[in-house]
Amino acid sequence: MESAIPAHLRCPRTRPARASETYEPPYPAWVARLRPQVKQVVMAYFGVQCREPGEAPAAFSALKKITGHFHEPSGPPHHDLAMYVDEAGFTTYVAIAYWESAEDFQAWAGQSSMNAWWQSEDRLSDGLGYFKEVFCPRASHFETLFSTLDRFEGAALMAESLSGEIQEHGYWGAARDRLPASQYEAMESSGTPSVDAAAPRPGSRVRVKSHDNVALIRSGQEWTETAGKERQLYLSEVEPILLQGMQFLRDKGGTIGCYFNRYMVHVNGEGIPIEKSFGMSCWKSLEHLERWAESHPTHIAIFGTFMRVVQEMNFDLRLRLYHEVSVARADEQVFEYINCHPKTGLLRAASDS
Amino acid sequence: MESAIPAHLRCPRTRPARASETYEPPYPAWVARLRPQVKQVVMAYFGVQCREPGEAPAAFSALKKITGHFHEPSGPPHHDLAMYVDEAGFTTYVAIAYWESAEDFQAWAGQSSMNAWWQSEDRLSDGLGYFKEVFCPRASHFETLFSTLDRFEGAALMAESLSGEIQEHGYWGAARDRLPASQYEAMESSGTPSVDAAAPRPGSRVRVKSHDNVALIRSGQEWTETAGKERQLYLSEVEPILLQGMQFLRDKGGTIGCYFNRYMVHVNGEGIPIEKSFGMSCWKSLEHLERWAESHPTHIAIFGTFMRVVQEMNFDLRLRLYHEVSVARADEQVFEYINCHPKTGLLRAASDS
Repeated sequence: MESAIPAHLRCPRTRPARASETYEPPYPAWVARLRPQVKQVVMAYFGVQCREPGEAPAAFSALKKITGHFHEPSGPPHHDLAMYVDEAGFTTYVAIAYWESAEDFQAWAGQSSMNAWWQSEDRLSDGLGYFKEVFCPRASHFETLFSTLDRFEGAALMAESLSGEIQEHGYWGAARDRLPASQYEAMESSGTPSVDAAAPRPGSRVRVKSHDNVALIRSGQEWTETAGKERQLYLSEVEPILLQGMQFLRDKGGTIGCYFNRYMVHVNGEGIPIEKSFGMSCWKSLEHLERWAESHPTHIAIFGTFMRVVQEMNFDLRLRLYHEVSVARADEQVFEYINCHPKTGLLRAASDS
Repeated sequence: MESAIPAHLRCPRTRPARASETYEPPYPAWVARLRPQVKQVVMAYFGVQCREPGEAPAAFSALKKITGHFHEPSGPPHHDLAMYVDEAGFTTYVAIAYWESAEDFQAWAGQSSMNAWWQSEDRLSDGLGYFKEVFCPRASHFETLFSTLDRFEGAALMAESLSGEIQEHGYWGAARDRLPASQYEAMESSGTPSVDAAAPRPGSRVRVKSHDNVALIRSGQEWTETAGKERQLYLSEVEPILLQGMQFLRDKGGTIGCYFNRYMVHVNGEGIPIEKSFGMSCWKSLEHLERWAESHPTHIAIFGTFMRVVQEMNFDLRLRLYHEVSVARADEQVFEYINCHPKTGLLRAASDS
């Protein structure tokens, strides 16, 4: 058993972990170990949205245009493709690109031949919406969790190795305890997102200014390898309840500090959905995320249903679960929306305020 | 909004509360305010057990004999009567007496005319089992919570007043945050209960030695005033799930650090059950109690069902809820069993070890 916090980021705690040192988790879990040289992780969500389902091929094609530029120098070592239908009914394709250095990301972003296309006036008139949401949390403000030890997802794909079984999981507050920064800071936040009036805004290109200590979670599952009773239970009992919770956060999350939520399904290179999905949500603070997770009826239903299925399956699951959580300063976040509807991403919170 | 920790017990925190200072609970709750002079609360559980239901009248009669002595000098200002069927199928009647001073309790216990009867050899041969379990937590290690502000239960009946709406509730870990001692200590525990070989043990009078930081919870509900849909939901949906959780703790709780659990129903002066019940359980540590409450399927089911009903009732409930939690040092606990079966109360944990 080891700590989820990597050795090079451990320090004497001024803020105790919620679980005691003798705590033993009820089942095993693992975390990804980034190389100690990694100071910041970059997660860049590039999105293309369209109002009508008939425009989906054009939107996906535009997304592939973007990912084509990932192969240029200093491009991301890894990216995912996914899609979702948002609160306004817009079909949205997303490429999530991961870098293990802010410098590499800046190098790519500064020199990519994508820039001329991205900045062209044509992006305002080709009938699609485009956005870029970038989070660059420090390694001290980033954590992962995996229920299986044979495959990574998301930012963890850049990891050097997997941990041994870790201690800080299986109780509410464990995600915080896994964040190295929780050893010495509360990660509280204040302020609200606002449209950045100082940013260049030709036509309807909008930048949103965020605030310190926004929390981000990507929490996913893959049911490719499930079969028989487990598959049936997942599809008929777990997934519908998960969907309800995701829709609550998407449509009403603003009332409890969730800026936006997207329940996405991975797609392959042709835009075809595969059997992997994840919720990705952005929160006013880690505490707001914690409160929803641990006490809101919609998440209690998800958790309770899942726990029941785990028991029915006698803890023998082929379902794969993981998540990544980060907390970012204002200057570690970029939100840019081009020709997007006004409820897109952080635009909604910025216009509500 | 005020802190659950009374002003005279507040101090600079060396251990942060789990919720931030800006946290706002999703619904109101209150705590009982004991007089500042109260240094220790005494809760004495006197029990009489019988194997056969036909012996219940004799057992209840013996309990009334005990409560008759409560009227002697320095007797408890308040006591409750309740009954339950334990893990061995024994019907057990309990009187729970509360004092607001350890000195008063000692004065009563030292001079009560009950003592000769309690210590008589006849208690070993009259066919009943008797026990006394006393907890004397310091005020710094005791907290309450009420969902309604018009009536107290349990130790709170000794309170001087009700608080205003308090901040530390509505999230896991809030009970700990309400304990004044959580400001500066972890309340971890070690050790296991054992039969006290040094204690006088004529016949089968047994004393069990406990250890530091055992946690005790009494968590109750009254449905007297519910009607219509709420009553139907409580009786058909909430209570059966609650009962399942209580039975799990009673029968299997030992596997997760629960020394014993009793799901009791209040009885009136004639031994007739009334529409009030509570679970009373004793734990290896507060952390063990926290882990069950927040993550065990049996409690997630209770919590989830209750939350669903609360929503169905639009937060308009006549159901009354309360709890009291305390953490006691070894020298603040007394466990004495006379002619009881070996799984009674802390005897089970003492003989398992």
